[in-house]
Amino acid sequence: MSDGSEDKVIIETEDDDDAYGLDHDNVDTILAAVEANNQPLLLELLEPLHVADIADVLEQISRSERAALIELWGIELDGGVLSELEEGVRDEILRDLPDHVLAEAVRDLDTDDVVYLVGDLDEPQQEKLLGSLEDADRAAVEMSLQYEEYTAGRLMQRELVSAPQHWNVGDIIDYMRASDDLPETFYDVFIVDPFMHPIGTVRLSKIMAAARKTLLTALMSEDFRTIPVDQEQEDVAYAFNQYHMVSAPVVDEDGRLVGVITIDDAMEVLEDEAEEDMKLLAGIGDEELSDSVLETARLRFPWLAVNLGTAILASLVIGLFSATIESIVALAVLMPIVASMGGNAGTQTLTVAVRALATRDLTASNAMRIVRREALVGLGNGMVFAVVIGIVGWLWFGLPLLGVVIAVATVINMLVAGLAGILIPIGLEKVGADPALASGTFVTTVTDVVGFFAFLGLAGWVLT
Amino acid sequence: MSDGSEDKVIIETEDDDDAYGLDHDNVDTILAAVEANNQPLLLELLEPLHVADIADVLEQISRSERAALIELWGIELDGGVLSELEEGVRDEILRDLPDHVLAEAVRDLDTDDVVYLVGDLDEPQQEKLLGSLEDADRAAVEMSLQYEEYTAGRLMQRELVSAPQHWNVGDIIDYMRASDDLPETFYDVFIVDPFMHPIGTVRLSKIMAAARKTLLTALMSEDFRTIPVDQEQEDVAYAFNQYHMVSAPVVDEDGRLVGVITIDDAMEVLEDEAEEDMKLLAGIGDEELSDSVLETARLRFPWLAVNLGTAILASLVIGLFSATIESIVALAVLMPIVASMGGNAGTQTLTVAVRALATRDLTASNAMRIVRREALVGLGNGMVFAVVIGIVGWLWFGLPLLGVVIAVATVINMLVAGLAGILIPIGLEKVGADPALASGTFVTTVTDVVGFFAFLGLAGWVLT
Repeated sequence: MSDGSEDKVIIETEDDDDAYGLDHDNVDTILAAVEANNQPLLLELLEPLHVADIADVLEQISRSERAALIELWGIELDGGVLSELEEGVRDEILRDLPDHVLAEAVRDLDTDDVVYLVGDLDEPQQEKLLGSLEDADRAAVEMSLQYEEYTAGRLMQRELVSAPQHWNVGDIIDYMRASDDLPETFYDVFIVDPFMHPIGTVRLSKIMAAARKTLLTALMSEDFRTIPVDQEQEDVAYAFNQYHMVSAPVVDEDGRLVGVITIDDAMEVLEDEAEEDMKLLAGIGDEELSDSVLETARLRFPWLAVNLGTAILASLVIGLFSATIESIVALAVLMPIVASMGGNAGTQTLTVAVRALATRDLTASNAMRIVRREALVGLGNGMVFAVVIGIVGWLWFGLPLLGVVIAVATVINMLVAGLAGILIPIGLEKVGADPALASGTFVTTVTDVVGFFAFLGLAGWVLT
Repeated sequence: MSDGSEDKVIIETEDDDDAYGLDHDNVDTILAAVEANNQPLLLELLEPLHVADIADVLEQISRSERAALIELWGIELDGGVLSELEEGVRDEILRDLPDHVLAEAVRDLDTDDVVYLVGDLDEPQQEKLLGSLEDADRAAVEMSLQYEEYTAGRLMQRELVSAPQHWNVGDIIDYMRASDDLPETFYDVFIVDPFMHPIGTVRLSKIMAAARKTLLTALMSEDFRTIPVDQEQEDVAYAFNQYHMVSAPVVDEDGRLVGVITIDDAMEVLEDEAEEDMKLLAGIGDEELSDSVLETARLRFPWLAVNLGTAILASLVIGLFSATIESIVALAVLMPIVASMGGNAGTQTLTVAVRALATRDLTASNAMRIVRREALVGLGNGMVFAVVIGIVGWLWFGLPLLGVVIAVATVINMLVAGLAGILIPIGLEKVGADPALASGTFVTTVTDVVGFFAFLGLAGWVLT
């Protein structure tokens, strides 16, 4: 950080004047305090920062700086930071954290945050961490851990406020005033029948605006959606987003209320899912910005290996036409244009399709129409660009027939690109795979192979 | 829909058993009711559906089916559907909707939904719609429309609950019980000083759990963030996500409370921004799934035109080495491998960089480290694949030197790919452009040009 080369890549945009996030000076001052081994100053600097911002600091500094900061922070470490960290950095910190610091840090966390942390640890570390919790918390955490990862059971919090059907506004207010372990935040009271089945929800704002003797059932909305405890978190996030839900009751297989999921949890899942699709499309796995060179290289390797395979396939196609290329070298010069236009058109279609499948806008009801549309768009743009590319090919090499050949190949490849871009992700979804997964390679493989084959094959037939 | 070919692309996944969204039968039944011109049946079918699901139906059916459905629905049309529709379909429906139906539909909407709708209309339609509102609503809508699109001012709702500093729990409860125009939903009461500056927020759940004589200021959190009314919605969404906010007060330039933004609005913006980046990366503009063939083709055209330009640039590079290719045709066969590996490696880096810039994880504090990492990852994977590709080249054509040449070109291109993938989006952000915009083309142009130049140049030098 001291070689001065940093200055070359400082990111300065209009965003710099906004009120959120960290600025560069902030991080530098914190690092200076760590370097000077000045704990009071460090605490003073961290104190006004939100735990999410402190987590960002930890992610953005180097591994050794991170270790030094954590050591200097010591027992004062705020456990909230741990749940904000990305997985790689969190694992690294948890591994190095002394037992008593970890126990102290975890004690103040909500049980759903503890569940989130514990889920990532290996067996002995889990035991250690669970052992440092109070009995009630420990039991709650262990209960949540019984549910599968990435399901509603893991996402929900168990603390909630429910009321029997016969209660009125006064009853629930008195209950809440008397209770000393209400959830930190809640937006709805769930009305349950004697079997703990939720029969309605009442928004807090409605309760507050009603007279004491109003029955809760009179304020209750029956138009709510329950979430099965084993539902995939992706579906939970979809429901929150689609129906503008703020909190939703989670029920077990017997329909009994066991927890609540709030919109902030759903928002995080939604953000993660969008990021995952974006990364899958580009052939990146579960990598994080703080990963080391070795980890990053290893995670990107498989996709590059697949790409090498498909590139060799495309080369084999070209190899079939070596003799043709030898007699007309212009073909070698022009062939990447056909492949590239197809690849781009295919990627456009693919991205739209993957996104539409994720948001469930592309369904059986409109799939056929969209497939037709993509074919026509590919054909239409293909014909327009075919004219341009045909003229380029003709004028460049003075061979009118070469222009015709490249024009026809362009139309064919862009039509195929449109079809591949929509049919491949639909096909992947149909067989139960993630439509974003490897779609990119499949599509460009198709457009490379078809592009080279159409162009060189036609050329061999017409021009030689 | 009646040609039977639909069956070929029905999307069936494990998702089908979940409780959300629409199923195919649902849409078919609705269309049958429309076809039969059976209004009572249509109303019965639509009644249990959430407006978001009805909007999905409208988006998924064809234009003529849509017109028929809207006409049959008639005056019963639920205005809530309008704010759920994607822009293209909404504009189409608004254009055709009879004045009295539009007026009736809009009357029940919240003012922020009306603002959202009106923002898209042209002048005369705006006037007509505004004219159908009650005076108070009309004034509120016109006030909001004064703020720039995509800012907090447009996102916020003006209805909120605030209280002076001296109020206690009893005061606010009495106030709410007496008030008859409370917001539909709210989560916080804002405590304001006599100048309407927010000085703290109190969660409703805290108020409900406290005794009547407790001062609101005793329950109040001072650790809240105000949002300037002219702040970009992207920054607002970032703040909600980063700090797990549920609602936040919006203030004017004098710091006076003018509105509130709630997490569901922020969630929508966050989702939109992620989608926008994904589309920009693939070279798709503001297109929607319901766009016609012509619209879609037109929107994708510019990016394809840019790509044609860069593809021709790559061809010009190849053209420089025509003589070399003529003497060793194996070069034409192998050259796409070098370009393709570079393109893929560059896209991987690019996607990580664009995402990290969007989530503000890539900042001045770690940019230099990430640039170094990407260069090393490119170099490392480049060396591994160079060995494989070198052996392929050697064995395929029996020329050991050709293997060496393609290996060296691969290393060079993958190193350059890593650097281009990170420096191009950082550079775009620095000059104030969206880092996702056209990054993809820039990066693959670099890797194509460098790949062809390195491979063919080296080959010309070493092999001929």
